Amino acid sequence: MSYQAPIKDMLFAIEHLAQIDQVAQLPGFEDAGLDTAQAVLEECAKLAEGVLAPLNWEGDQNPSALKDGAVKTTPGFKDAYRQYTEGGWQGLQHPQDFGGQGLPKTIGAACIEMINSANMSFALCPLLTDGAIEALLTAGSDALKATYLEKLVTGEWTGTMNLTEPQAGSDLALVRTRAEPQGDGTYKVFGTKIFITYGEHDMAENIVHLVLARVQGAPEGVKGISLFVVPKFMVNADGSLGARNDAHCVSIEHKLGIKASPTAVLQFGDNAGAVGYLVGEENRGLEYMFIMMNAARYAVGMQGIAIAERAYQKAVAYARERVQSRPVDGSMKESATIIHHPDVRRMLMTMRAHTEGCRAMATVAAAAYDAAHHHADAQVRKDSAAFYEFMVPLVKGYSTDMSIDVTSMGVQVHGGMGFIEETGAAQYYRDARILTIYEGTTAIQANDLVGRKTARDGGAVARAIAAQIEQTEAALHANSSGAAQTVAARLETARLAYLDVVEFVVKHGKSSPNAVFAGSVPYLLLAGRLVAGWQLARSLLVADALLQKGQDTAFMQAKIVTAQFYADHVLSSIPGMRDAIVAGAGSVTELALDAF
Amino acid sequence: MSYQAPIKDMLFAIEHLAQIDQVAQLPGFEDAGLDTAQAVLEECAKLAEGVLAPLNWEGDQNPSALKDGAVKTTPGFKDAYRQYTEGGWQGLQHPQDFGGQGLPKTIGAACIEMINSANMSFALCPLLTDGAIEALLTAGSDALKATYLEKLVTGEWTGTMNLTEPQAGSDLALVRTRAEPQGDGTYKVFGTKIFITYGEHDMAENIVHLVLARVQGAPEGVKGISLFVVPKFMVNADGSLGARNDAHCVSIEHKLGIKASPTAVLQFGDNAGAVGYLVGEENRGLEYMFIMMNAARYAVGMQGIAIAERAYQKAVAYARERVQSRPVDGSMKESATIIHHPDVRRMLMTMRAHTEGCRAMATVAAAAYDAAHHHADAQVRKDSAAFYEFMVPLVKGYSTDMSIDVTSMGVQVHGGMGFIEETGAAQYYRDARILTIYEGTTAIQANDLVGRKTARDGGAVARAIAAQIEQTEAALHANSSGAAQTVAARLETARLAYLDVVEFVVKHGKSSPNAVFAGSVPYLLLAGRLVAGWQLARSLLVADALLQKGQDTAFMQAKIVTAQFYADHVLSSIPGMRDAIVAGAGSVTELALDAF
Repeated sequence: MSYQAPIKDMLFAIEHLAQIDQVAQLPGFEDAGLDTAQAVLEECAKLAEGVLAPLNWEGDQNPSALKDGAVKTTPGFKDAYRQYTEGGWQGLQHPQDFGGQGLPKTIGAACIEMINSANMSFALCPLLTDGAIEALLTAGSDALKATYLEKLVTGEWTGTMNLTEPQAGSDLALVRTRAEPQGDGTYKVFGTKIFITYGEHDMAENIVHLVLARVQGAPEGVKGISLFVVPKFMVNADGSLGARNDAHCVSIEHKLGIKASPTAVLQFGDNAGAVGYLVGEENRGLEYMFIMMNAARYAVGMQGIAIAERAYQKAVAYARERVQSRPVDGSMKESATIIHHPDVRRMLMTMRAHTEGCRAMATVAAAAYDAAHHHADAQVRKDSAAFYEFMVPLVKGYSTDMSIDVTSMGVQVHGGMGFIEETGAAQYYRDARILTIYEGTTAIQANDLVGRKTARDGGAVARAIAAQIEQTEAALHANSSGAAQTVAARLETARLAYLDVVEFVVKHGKSSPNAVFAGSVPYLLLAGRLVAGWQLARSLLVADALLQKGQDTAFMQAKIVTAQFYADHVLSSIPGMRDAIVAGAGSVTELALDAF
Repeated sequence: MSYQAPIKDMLFAIEHLAQIDQVAQLPGFEDAGLDTAQAVLEECAKLAEGVLAPLNWEGDQNPSALKDGAVKTTPGFKDAYRQYTEGGWQGLQHPQDFGGQGLPKTIGAACIEMINSANMSFALCPLLTDGAIEALLTAGSDALKATYLEKLVTGEWTGTMNLTEPQAGSDLALVRTRAEPQGDGTYKVFGTKIFITYGEHDMAENIVHLVLARVQGAPEGVKGISLFVVPKFMVNADGSLGARNDAHCVSIEHKLGIKASPTAVLQFGDNAGAVGYLVGEENRGLEYMFIMMNAARYAVGMQGIAIAERAYQKAVAYARERVQSRPVDGSMKESATIIHHPDVRRMLMTMRAHTEGCRAMATVAAAAYDAAHHHADAQVRKDSAAFYEFMVPLVKGYSTDMSIDVTSMGVQVHGGMGFIEETGAAQYYRDARILTIYEGTTAIQANDLVGRKTARDGGAVARAIAAQIEQTEAALHANSSGAAQTVAARLETARLAYLDVVEFVVKHGKSSPNAVFAGSVPYLLLAGRLVAGWQLARSLLVADALLQKGQDTAFMQAKIVTAQFYADHVLSSIPGMRDAIVAGAGSVTELALDAF
């Protein structure tokens, strides 16, 4: 069950696709060049491979358990978390003002991938803390920042996001948790929140719950939701911990996967009321929560890539070891390791190409995020932000969707052994299954892609991306290799199909919302496939150029083959997806409700 | 977690697609008309819905357990099995000479689906017994038949298939279990078999193991494998049970799913040797085993359809009940049940269309099986057999592959609740995952499709099926409805793509085996999609005709919409699959082995 961080591929994406040199020219990121990236990734890999990965299976077998209101995490997790915080990993991307390292997302994203490949259940705790930090940084008062931020950035305390209630999942308008102002600037919070990741645990001294609730008299729906900090333990003026707040874990869920990660039902205010502190202004909670959500959505996309990478590595290891049947081409007289069989190769290539494609997409998106936040030029910031915002639903929705298929193939490569839990492949399959659901289902991501990211600007950003892809096609055409020509042709066909869909979405968004939303998830998956394939096409060009210079021949050749495989086997599916979206909307909603 | 047998859809397929009237004209099936089918299905539904379905979740939570060499099955299973045997269900398709009911597969298949929808873990026991019966019927001596068949047909005893050994999974040439002739016509069997479904349990008095082993001096590889009956308890001359045989369960597996079904490691001959009786002739074991395998493969395909149906029903029930968000078309001012949301509808329609399509395909295949075995005309028998044989890898490989996607969508429809085990959707997702693996992985099915079923006859049967599809297209063209025209166009495009692939397989099978086998599974999935879509297209024609007569309007309209949905959303993917197979073979095996 060993895991080896794919540092080389990560650095390839960071250096050549995300162009870390340009990121290092942004104000504030002067020290964040390739050397820094390499040093950080190598250090992170030690933690991931040596400390976190060995606990992954244990977490599945011996998950978090609730007793008397306290959650005991898997043996080893607490110590691993200590090492995680001592290494300063929680603060990697957070401001130096609050004890962070202030590194760009372009580098931080790779670390998030590693931590999640090693142990997704563990990594969820820091992931939620990151979200809490983002929300406080953006909207917290100076007092809240002073009290909470440094402790969160060091990881001494952890954060949670409290959105969901039994009746309010995707639809936050239905939130009923209420907050009563106490006249002293504080509130008392009452209500039940479910599905709270690391809502209770024993790895940190305090837990900072960020809670959506309604203040009495607030408008109905999402415009009446406010955001509160509700600490597990009150914080004294000197920063020491005070009384236990009235926020308690009443149960944790029995889940399909990520079992080591405690998913809590939290009860706020069952006794005197849970003391809460308003974040920002009343009734703007959803807006702030979206800051957390957007950070978390990107990170969940990385989880998809991470679990796919882990499943791929395990499948490759098994395929190299398991001996079964002679090769079909008669090249060996004895039974061979199954990696010699074309169908096993097809599965491994599929797993590899999806993983590398989504990694490339996410890394490029991270660089756009960095430029959006740090570039000196306002127009570049704006364009970069628009690109990043378009990428978020793809990174989240598409990388997680592909991770379900990839982890499923990982089981398949193992044959019967894949179905036996001790083998470990099944755990990835179970763990991955949450990724298309939490932090907004794929349908919610697709709503975002269709509504805010495509229809709102009349498809401008969507088409701008197509124009960039076209430039890559031109570069491929200028390259003489057969692989480049193949990829160029597939990419062009796929881009044109994508443009058809963008046109369909823009044209019918208002007039036929049912038709557009019938194809919203397929549109997201199509766009994700295209952008990942585009980045692999760029990889091919880079690899070909470096190959000419004699650099790392085997690695560069592999990049080229992987790009071609992706074009042949994944991009080739895009025209059919277009047809389903554009021509097939009617049959999606035509069946009478009582006929189901 | 209730289950309602989809009797109406089953009877539609049995009556109109498989044409039960024609089956009932076959010698031996005179009483097996539509009325019989309906009566049998209704009776079976009672057992499935009332007895077996309520035990499904219990089986997952409280699975079979091994203690002191004995397996205790889930509480309730033993009694349910008693009811199953008392109802005569084990003998449904088996000869009346041995106590069976001698019904056609066209009817029996629907019962297998129901039993598996209700409780797949339970249904595996009868499924394996069916295989043992087939093998003994075909190759067993009169003495073996006399001793074992009736007890198996009544279900008083159960059967197992013992193929796999730790080093021999897909590759049976590697079987090492040995059988030593004792000079009295019996053998002593020594070896270890793994993954033996219901290899040990407490639901029946005796277990009849069918075991692959090598007799000393036999040729190497698969031509030196013989098949033996090794009973758990010896059988006395009067049919009563004698001494315990030296075949023992040493462990059972901890699995991802189908947990109630004990998967045993069996040790043969650890003491004096397990007494075994040769089935048929020495060294022809593989041939006989294929008889069992073929029966079992079809049944595993039905399991795919069964679990997809169950997942669909559960998802529909949740979507009708869960309230979340307003409809995107503004048709309601309040939050609606999620079945009103287009993306949920898309998922439900996808689940439904796949399930009905595969059911139709399997039912038509069953009718071909019946004709192949019972028709008076030798040419019809031959053609029907060829059609059925072509269908087996599709029913097995494709229906199970789609069941993984469908059960995954079932989880997705449930949102966060889907990830909580108590909801039950996750169990189907876990259970389904074995189906593409056991009784031959999808790759093994695809090898069969490519080698024995396509290349061997130069693509004759494959093309004959395309010709039949073309006739359906002609009938669709003659139909004036828009749905028929849409389906006709998609079907034609898909059929032509399929023919390209058949051509590719036939042409390159010998010269470029790596290229052909790189696309073997995609070919299987493509062919499965096409045939299922073809049967739904036939359904559309039937439904349209019946609609004209005013029959069951809502049901017939639903058939038409489902066929159109399938054409728009599934058949539309086939040209892209063709491209990947025909143009993408090279990149599958190009990556250097050490580059993975």
